[in-house]
Amino acid sequence: MVNAGDMNGSGNLMDFLDEPFPDVGTYEDFHTIDWLREKSRDTDRHRKITSKSKESIWEFIKSLLDAWSGWVVMLLIGLLAGTLAGVIDLAVDWMTDLKEGVCLSAFWYSHEQCCWTSNETTFDDRDKCPQWQKWSELLVSQSEGASAYILNYFLYIMWALCFAFLAVSLVRVFAPYACGSGIPEIKTILSGFIIRGYLGKWTLLIKTVTLVLVVSSGLSLGKEGPLVHVACCCGNFFSSLFSKYSKNEGKRREVLSAAAAAGVSVAFGAPIGGVLFSLEEVSYYFPLKTLWRSFFAALVAAFTLRSINPFGNSRLVLFYVEYHTPWSTSELISELFNDCGALESSQLCDYINDPNMTRPVDDIPDRPAGPGVYSAMWQLALALVFKIVITIFTFGMKIPSGLFIPSMAVGAMAGRMVGIGVEQLAYHHHDWIIFRNWCRPGADCVTPGLYAMVGAAACLGGVTRMTVSLVVIMFELTGGLEYIVPLMAAAVTSKWVADAFGKEGIYEAHIHLNGYPFLDVKDEFTHRTLATDVMRPRRGEAPLSVLTQDSMTVEDVETLIKETDYNGFPVVVSKDSERLIGFAQRRELILAIKNARQRQDGVVSNSIVYFTEDPPELPPNSPHPLKLRRILNLSPFTVTDHTPMETVVDIFRKLGLRQCLVTRSGRLLGIITKKDVLRHMAQMANQDPESIMFN
Amino acid sequence: MVNAGDMNGSGNLMDFLDEPFPDVGTYEDFHTIDWLREKSRDTDRHRKITSKSKESIWEFIKSLLDAWSGWVVMLLIGLLAGTLAGVIDLAVDWMTDLKEGVCLSAFWYSHEQCCWTSNETTFDDRDKCPQWQKWSELLVSQSEGASAYILNYFLYIMWALCFAFLAVSLVRVFAPYACGSGIPEIKTILSGFIIRGYLGKWTLLIKTVTLVLVVSSGLSLGKEGPLVHVACCCGNFFSSLFSKYSKNEGKRREVLSAAAAAGVSVAFGAPIGGVLFSLEEVSYYFPLKTLWRSFFAALVAAFTLRSINPFGNSRLVLFYVEYHTPWSTSELISELFNDCGALESSQLCDYINDPNMTRPVDDIPDRPAGPGVYSAMWQLALALVFKIVITIFTFGMKIPSGLFIPSMAVGAMAGRMVGIGVEQLAYHHHDWIIFRNWCRPGADCVTPGLYAMVGAAACLGGVTRMTVSLVVIMFELTGGLEYIVPLMAAAVTSKWVADAFGKEGIYEAHIHLNGYPFLDVKDEFTHRTLATDVMRPRRGEAPLSVLTQDSMTVEDVETLIKETDYNGFPVVVSKDSERLIGFAQRRELILAIKNARQRQDGVVSNSIVYFTEDPPELPPNSPHPLKLRRILNLSPFTVTDHTPMETVVDIFRKLGLRQCLVTRSGRLLGIITKKDVLRHMAQMANQDPESIMFN
Repeated sequence: MVNAGDMNGSGNLMDFLDEPFPDVGTYEDFHTIDWLREKSRDTDRHRKITSKSKESIWEFIKSLLDAWSGWVVMLLIGLLAGTLAGVIDLAVDWMTDLKEGVCLSAFWYSHEQCCWTSNETTFDDRDKCPQWQKWSELLVSQSEGASAYILNYFLYIMWALCFAFLAVSLVRVFAPYACGSGIPEIKTILSGFIIRGYLGKWTLLIKTVTLVLVVSSGLSLGKEGPLVHVACCCGNFFSSLFSKYSKNEGKRREVLSAAAAAGVSVAFGAPIGGVLFSLEEVSYYFPLKTLWRSFFAALVAAFTLRSINPFGNSRLVLFYVEYHTPWSTSELISELFNDCGALESSQLCDYINDPNMTRPVDDIPDRPAGPGVYSAMWQLALALVFKIVITIFTFGMKIPSGLFIPSMAVGAMAGRMVGIGVEQLAYHHHDWIIFRNWCRPGADCVTPGLYAMVGAAACLGGVTRMTVSLVVIMFELTGGLEYIVPLMAAAVTSKWVADAFGKEGIYEAHIHLNGYPFLDVKDEFTHRTLATDVMRPRRGEAPLSVLTQDSMTVEDVETLIKETDYNGFPVVVSKDSERLIGFAQRRELILAIKNARQRQDGVVSNSIVYFTEDPPELPPNSPHPLKLRRILNLSPFTVTDHTPMETVVDIFRKLGLRQCLVTRSGRLLGIITKKDVLRHMAQMANQDPESIMFN
Repeated sequence: MVNAGDMNGSGNLMDFLDEPFPDVGTYEDFHTIDWLREKSRDTDRHRKITSKSKESIWEFIKSLLDAWSGWVVMLLIGLLAGTLAGVIDLAVDWMTDLKEGVCLSAFWYSHEQCCWTSNETTFDDRDKCPQWQKWSELLVSQSEGASAYILNYFLYIMWALCFAFLAVSLVRVFAPYACGSGIPEIKTILSGFIIRGYLGKWTLLIKTVTLVLVVSSGLSLGKEGPLVHVACCCGNFFSSLFSKYSKNEGKRREVLSAAAAAGVSVAFGAPIGGVLFSLEEVSYYFPLKTLWRSFFAALVAAFTLRSINPFGNSRLVLFYVEYHTPWSTSELISELFNDCGALESSQLCDYINDPNMTRPVDDIPDRPAGPGVYSAMWQLALALVFKIVITIFTFGMKIPSGLFIPSMAVGAMAGRMVGIGVEQLAYHHHDWIIFRNWCRPGADCVTPGLYAMVGAAACLGGVTRMTVSLVVIMFELTGGLEYIVPLMAAAVTSKWVADAFGKEGIYEAHIHLNGYPFLDVKDEFTHRTLATDVMRPRRGEAPLSVLTQDSMTVEDVETLIKETDYNGFPVVVSKDSERLIGFAQRRELILAIKNARQRQDGVVSNSIVYFTEDPPELPPNSPHPLKLRRILNLSPFTVTDHTPMETVVDIFRKLGLRQCLVTRSGRLLGIITKKDVLRHMAQMANQDPESIMFN
């Protein structure tokens, strides 16, 4: 472990490395971080602040600020994520209506806002007001009839195409990372991989703008996944303001996990669901501290979104509105979930009512279906097939696109169809055993809307393999806490069924497809291989490149660095004994030698490099030796060559290692890197090990 | 790692250890388990079943059964835990009423059941029916007046005392482990500690019976914590039926984690809250697989409880009843949460109504308090102090007792008082800045019942430091999904405030108080010590007891075992080189030597014991050597002496190690056990390291 305290000069060893050199502790693009090392660096930083805080009041205040900075970052993320979500909602509303027409009194008003602010409209006719002009009314004198209809339709399509085209161009030209839902990449980043720019400000801007465009254009996609990406970009931005997070990739990932929770919180108005989604689906390292902070960020984000909501109602309850707003992008689902009252005008509710009915008008169970319901069934079946197909194609496009709402729509259609089927079966066959006990004639025993809700949950569960977070999101979304048992049953069943076809959810499948180096905690490694089968060098390969503790010259080291591209080198007592004393990072070796050559007198190419406490005994007139103990990790992680690979995989997963040295009876035999582990796992699963992207 | 496959005879080495000997892989009481080893043993078992499953259809079916046994165990736990919770509820109902009187038509009926089944009662007078006789009516002819009242009161107290005395005696004589809530001990057990009998059948029986007694006696305690203990006993019982779980302490703990979730699920009727409680508060090792299984167990348990609930209602909604049933043990909380309608008779709702009111009778906001409210405030304040005091004393008693309901009652009282205060402040000072905007005269802006609910959540949060699970339990309990923001804010605030007084929740405090060896994931270790400061032997102590790979005799080994009480011994190449080759468990050494002496010819006291592949070269006429390679763990966990203790603590926590060897440059220096780590942490926190109970 390279100890940051040692590097940054806590002072018991006086050599030129007392001053930290730049870029220490950073990683290159497409590299993987060393969690243990990051954690250790943070503890060191924390320790230094604590000891300094006793020196003066100013230092004490600084230590308090440092301790609270985590909560401050969460507050900022919550505020920004909530604001962005609100802005996106408003912009989508406006642009969706822009496809139809424009508000003459103020062009930035959506149709609803335009007519709400108009005094000339009556309550019954809120949709129509003179200020709101359809494009045909503006462009041609004749504003009714078939040709106006065709013109409106044509302009509607043109606007939609424009939006979609603009979105694709923006993504392609400015921020290729803004496409897709972003969740697979965020999962990978949270597991410790570095993808520079993926969470950058440019991505944030382009993703926000294009998300508005694609949602308004009416494509079959949801804004939920992209909102998680947007929130993570916010998280990345704010963590760059605090050195505690900007300089520590491990701590930064804690912030990002919480930001993901805030993203789901505003996407669905489901703060608890957001925290659980981050825990179950997205995060890799999720300590309890992060759980609490996520909880706080999700709370602030939901609250902010609610506060800026221009369609807010005046109820005491803060979040009542949220059970409905998310559906405004998807009125279809809302309709499918709805129960049929007597006043419902939807075709789905075209039941044959008993004219002699004595019950109150709201409570009309157990009716035969009318012709409208039958034709709605056909339309639903067609729409289901069509929706599945276009969703598949849309999700493959290079635009911001989420899967949540389309999957739920598919499930809701299927569920509603099943629900209507069961309802009519029950109506026509009250005597069947399954209906006899609980579904007597006249009883309200089948609610097709509930079937739609359960279907939506089941479909989303099958796609993503969420369970607990799914149920919580569903009941935060619908307010249907009472349906927890059918929802839970649906979640468990859909997981079982989907797992029978393959253990991977959509996000894991995408990670594999893209070859991201993701060490999934869900994959169980059960093969019988040992560390010796995986470590490098293999039999017949050149021996391991090592440094010796006190017998190599600066030039030897530079040659070794030049001729290999390894990220680090084990340091041994001597080439003969091969007893391991530590591990030196390539990056730090380069920086240290460069620094020494520039700044330290007498360090030349044939100076001896030593990693021991005391310099080796050298013949007289030897050049000044170079001490590099400070960059030596004196506690490299080791396993024996007999260690089963399942244990090695477990260690890599749980401790977040980057590499691990393999020894036998204290002698160094080889090295296993995270890449080796991932390739071995791919090989064992009969996949192409070369598909894994990794530097 | 002792590889179970090696021990159980996969066959490349032919020695007498081919047959497994009994008790291998078990642990002694008050010992800690080795998670890595348990995991490895399970993978091995799994691998064997998978390879066998290709041999015949029968083996294939067996492998399927094995794969599904986890879900079967969950189903059984859910069924039994739900049934027990239902039985406890019924029994508590009956026995609570038994303190008042008895049902003449059937003595096993509670007051409510007795009068429900009676035909002679009218709807208005459901509480009174001739079948239900108070004790005074049965015992003396005069059943009205002051003396009857005193007799009833006296008998009531006598019954309560009887119940409490019986409970204390039962616990003391039959199952001392049945006392308390059990959650601190379950946390400790789940972290890998062995406490034999704590989850035994006897504890299950006595805890169930005494729980009924103490709840019926009217003591200030809840049944929630004990129900978690009861559910874990069920879990332990069912896991003993499946060798997959009974023979593997690690797998058994996965079942117990899920059982804890089922326990909370039935205690509160909150299945999701139960899963989150298990995750946030109780469990130590909680992989996603366990999350899904917990979810299933919680679902089955809640469903079972609902199905056997004799007070079930006929609503379509399965769990509506649950928002109310938990309160039947605590009508006080229910009343405190309630809103005041016009028909409410409670003293808390004695508001002065406007006689000229034109609003509908249900909606009467913004009223001045009547004298009843003022006297209720005094009573609440007194009750609050009294409740706090008796709850503290009750929780210290040696009876089954939970803290949830009493803490919530305390919080609800305080919250209702604050709520009434704010309400009256708003009524009398509509012009104050804080009220001006949102609380105009006549508006319903303050709901004291909501304050009580938030107060209950805050108080419970402060006591246990739960956050996410707390909010979910609260809204599953009350159905108040709409109040998620105030509940979340209360949870976060109460956690902050409580943490300022000390980081430990009540369960962690109890663990420390009892000296259980619990390596808390929440504690951060930030001290600057190194492995070398903690390892044994210390400077000046006798050298580490080691075995050599091929130079000790059976007698030497037996002497070493006799003279020390270590749980295992490192095996080195030779005493001079001290190069580590593996680790041998004491228990397995004893068993192996005993077995060899009985069964293997030629093994005598001066036989050489060897751990290498091939026997050492021995002088002619030496006795037959004893090969013990099979019990040698060839991949013991090692760290270097320079490893920071924070990393060591992390490794122990995340990998669940029992011990770890310390080396420098490949030479064995010492050993660190979990006990050493815990003692070192206690020392660093200025606590007495000797207080930790550990064998």
